Amino acid sequence: MAKTKAPRRPRAETPKGFRDYFGAEVTQRKAMLDQIAEVYHRYGFDPLETSAVETVEALGKFLPDVDRPNEGVFAWQESEGTDVDWLALRYDLTAPLARVAAQYRNDLPSPYRRYAMGPVWRNEKPGPGRFRQFYQCDADTVGAASVAADAEICAMLADCLEAVGIARGDYVVRVNNRKVLNGVMEAAGVLDPADPERFASERGIVLRAIDKLDRLGEDGVRALLGAGRKDESGDFTKGAGLGAAQADIVLAFTEARRGTGAETAQVLRGLVGDSKIGAEGVDELEEIAALLDAQGYGPDRIIIDPSVVRGLGYYTGPVYEAELTFEILDEKGRKRQFGSVAGGGRYDDLVKRFTGQAVPATGVSIGVDRLLAALAAKGHAQKAAIGPVVVTVMDRDRMADYQAMAADLRRAGIRAEVYLGNPKNFGNQLKYADKRGAPVAIIQGGDEAARGVVQIKDLVLGAKIAEDATLEEWKANPAQIEAPRSEMVAAVRRILDAGK
Amino acid sequence: MAKTKAPRRPRAETPKGFRDYFGAEVTQRKAMLDQIAEVYHRYGFDPLETSAVETVEALGKFLPDVDRPNEGVFAWQESEGTDVDWLALRYDLTAPLARVAAQYRNDLPSPYRRYAMGPVWRNEKPGPGRFRQFYQCDADTVGAASVAADAEICAMLADCLEAVGIARGDYVVRVNNRKVLNGVMEAAGVLDPADPERFASERGIVLRAIDKLDRLGEDGVRALLGAGRKDESGDFTKGAGLGAAQADIVLAFTEARRGTGAETAQVLRGLVGDSKIGAEGVDELEEIAALLDAQGYGPDRIIIDPSVVRGLGYYTGPVYEAELTFEILDEKGRKRQFGSVAGGGRYDDLVKRFTGQAVPATGVSIGVDRLLAALAAKGHAQKAAIGPVVVTVMDRDRMADYQAMAADLRRAGIRAEVYLGNPKNFGNQLKYADKRGAPVAIIQGGDEAARGVVQIKDLVLGAKIAEDATLEEWKANPAQIEAPRSEMVAAVRRILDAGK
Repeated sequence: MAKTKAPRRPRAETPKGFRDYFGAEVTQRKAMLDQIAEVYHRYGFDPLETSAVETVEALGKFLPDVDRPNEGVFAWQESEGTDVDWLALRYDLTAPLARVAAQYRNDLPSPYRRYAMGPVWRNEKPGPGRFRQFYQCDADTVGAASVAADAEICAMLADCLEAVGIARGDYVVRVNNRKVLNGVMEAAGVLDPADPERFASERGIVLRAIDKLDRLGEDGVRALLGAGRKDESGDFTKGAGLGAAQADIVLAFTEARRGTGAETAQVLRGLVGDSKIGAEGVDELEEIAALLDAQGYGPDRIIIDPSVVRGLGYYTGPVYEAELTFEILDEKGRKRQFGSVAGGGRYDDLVKRFTGQAVPATGVSIGVDRLLAALAAKGHAQKAAIGPVVVTVMDRDRMADYQAMAADLRRAGIRAEVYLGNPKNFGNQLKYADKRGAPVAIIQGGDEAARGVVQIKDLVLGAKIAEDATLEEWKANPAQIEAPRSEMVAAVRRILDAGK
Repeated sequence: MAKTKAPRRPRAETPKGFRDYFGAEVTQRKAMLDQIAEVYHRYGFDPLETSAVETVEALGKFLPDVDRPNEGVFAWQESEGTDVDWLALRYDLTAPLARVAAQYRNDLPSPYRRYAMGPVWRNEKPGPGRFRQFYQCDADTVGAASVAADAEICAMLADCLEAVGIARGDYVVRVNNRKVLNGVMEAAGVLDPADPERFASERGIVLRAIDKLDRLGEDGVRALLGAGRKDESGDFTKGAGLGAAQADIVLAFTEARRGTGAETAQVLRGLVGDSKIGAEGVDELEEIAALLDAQGYGPDRIIIDPSVVRGLGYYTGPVYEAELTFEILDEKGRKRQFGSVAGGGRYDDLVKRFTGQAVPATGVSIGVDRLLAALAAKGHAQKAAIGPVVVTVMDRDRMADYQAMAADLRRAGIRAEVYLGNPKNFGNQLKYADKRGAPVAIIQGGDEAARGVVQIKDLVLGAKIAEDATLEEWKANPAQIEAPRSEMVAAVRRILDAGK
């Protein structure tokens, strides 16, 4: 039954799947982005900031994770005169880079190393912890065919993780090569070099199956490589239709990792058999390992690991992924490895869409929100910003005096503010100072003003005393001192320094 | 005649009205935002980052500059099941703050001081220098009824301008009060306190006319206050219909500024006559002036100036504007003052939309792009970031050696990269180094490798010599030195330090 709704006020809500970030959430992410930018800069990468809005035509259809439902972009039609354009919010930072590389190809240095940081948007079904706007933090090299570019990015990725506070030993960068995988596919009979389009759908299934090895285990992946797999809910996923012998080759590939890069390469060389593309891929992996060794990035930081394939369809050569190796407790209290926080690879065809000419490119995307969560899980999160000194208001006619106190503190570089709510209830002022995380409150009533002094309350010490003080200690109230107004700044500074 | 178009490649173009920012454009704006954030932080403001996307319902219809054509937001319809929501990109940072203040009203400290920085979007007709995405950099205090909050923001605005490099004397913060203007309107007979809606459209015209005083001069404003004004193109703008005596009162208001705030207040008190709201406004201006004086912000930085009205309809009390007072040459080579770079005021009704309860609020928005342009016009722009040391590639089989050189330099904190393009043509490598703004190039051929040395080319000095050297000097080539590989980092450091 339809009811006539009364006119109502607008809802004060973020749209579904979006959220707000407050205080330390903003500054901690910013600090991390600054640390990463410093490393990117040191490696010779230049910043690029494209607009949030692109034409749908320029963005193209390169959305990752194509087997996810409800995938899409936020798009709208813009009509101006007779021209009708579809515009959309960028879904990653790679598609805009491809557009820029094509648009400014005559002006940019070549190779072009660029980094970009900022929000991207996905029109996906929101879920717990899954948002429709999130940060990406990318570095890419466009125009370098050499795998030295890939090796450089792997080294830079290791440096970035250490720069933000992940200790060596707590992470590993795994490197693989899609060409090796293609060689294995050829050996397994699902890639025909003479007819590259043949078996494309089977190969897609193989790729996604390997990417799920962590989650499904060998049996699950074997099912997906074969007839298909029924999951716990009873849903059936069609498999690639490989026979047992074919599946063996693919699975041997994912388990080809040995103690050293050289040994792993040898195993891979056996698996790719006569495949030309496969041999090329193994050569590249060996080259990357040698380049990294020469720069001092050994297997304690970067390893060749054939189990890494990355989900994206557009990779054409080396792929890489950074994983945190320490254990955390998941939402059900079970120990598990933290997992992937960054990944990337070589994509040689994105710029070609615009220009018709293939432009080699390789790059990495660091998931800063995941990294922040990892640091928090390790207890390494940066401390929340210290709250301001709060100058309380005892006498509203002397607001100018209180403002002058705050100004004096600020001039000395001390974060300070005057309480600007209704000053009638003094208890509210102290509650406010508490909510602000204020380390110190300044109090000056008429009596103190007449004597030219202020009361300085050490709120941090006061809180400690309140926790475990006797009534006598509490009454002695050592957390509050009196100081001449002229010495207020110095006295506050002493308290702040002592609390550090 | 309709032609069948051949299928074509996507255009590599930003949508109309959007642009990309490269290298120093990104880092200079970031440096400015960091400087401003430091001041906001010192005043006790906390960062808030809302998402770019809001519901249209939450954004409301508070778009500024309502007399501009084609005004609007980027919006699209989202349908999920039977729910249909309109979403839109935020057009400023104030509307999202109002939504946040309502949504989290039980959790946020009150008063709530917050700052926000980020892009906003306007679906306007793009024009030269006018973009549909641009940065705002706001600070607001929500929940403080006292004009001490307004005074604080004016002081903070002055501090921000000095923090980014605008010298004292090169800017002025002008403060006015909408209540005084309302008092003047009452005295002029276009505001009836008993019927506030009456003459609303006339008052809108008066407001916008005063806002154009700079551009149109007294005669132009007088025309708009009266019957209307025909501009140079022949377009007619309807006026407010005031008689000459009424217009005199309004114009006297805009010219009420005297040598001191106290004198100005006295003139204003005369102009508002018996108006209660007008007298309240003058009281508030006097209070603001006293608060600022007490903190040491004299008329060399902040002045009471009745000619400032701000275009936005939603202001309800104090309004303020920062203006750069030095002269620049405009596009036609004429001298003119740089003009406004920041503005704000008190808006007590924005949160009320959501909650039904009036929440006093005041805040400022700094136009960082205008400020960057101002610093550039003064020749104060920060220098472009120094380019990386470029390690050239003489022998592509020794890529690992070159990468190790770059790694050594980076480990010493020196920005460095290996040339990753096709190394065949060495001239291209030096052209690349030039394009990158590289201060130094490292060269090591087979001969040097055998001898364990590198050639270090000082490109900055080299460019200077090339400009005014004789052929002999040029041949002597003092801008290139040879150093043992083990001393490469130290030698590069010496050259970089000498170039500072």
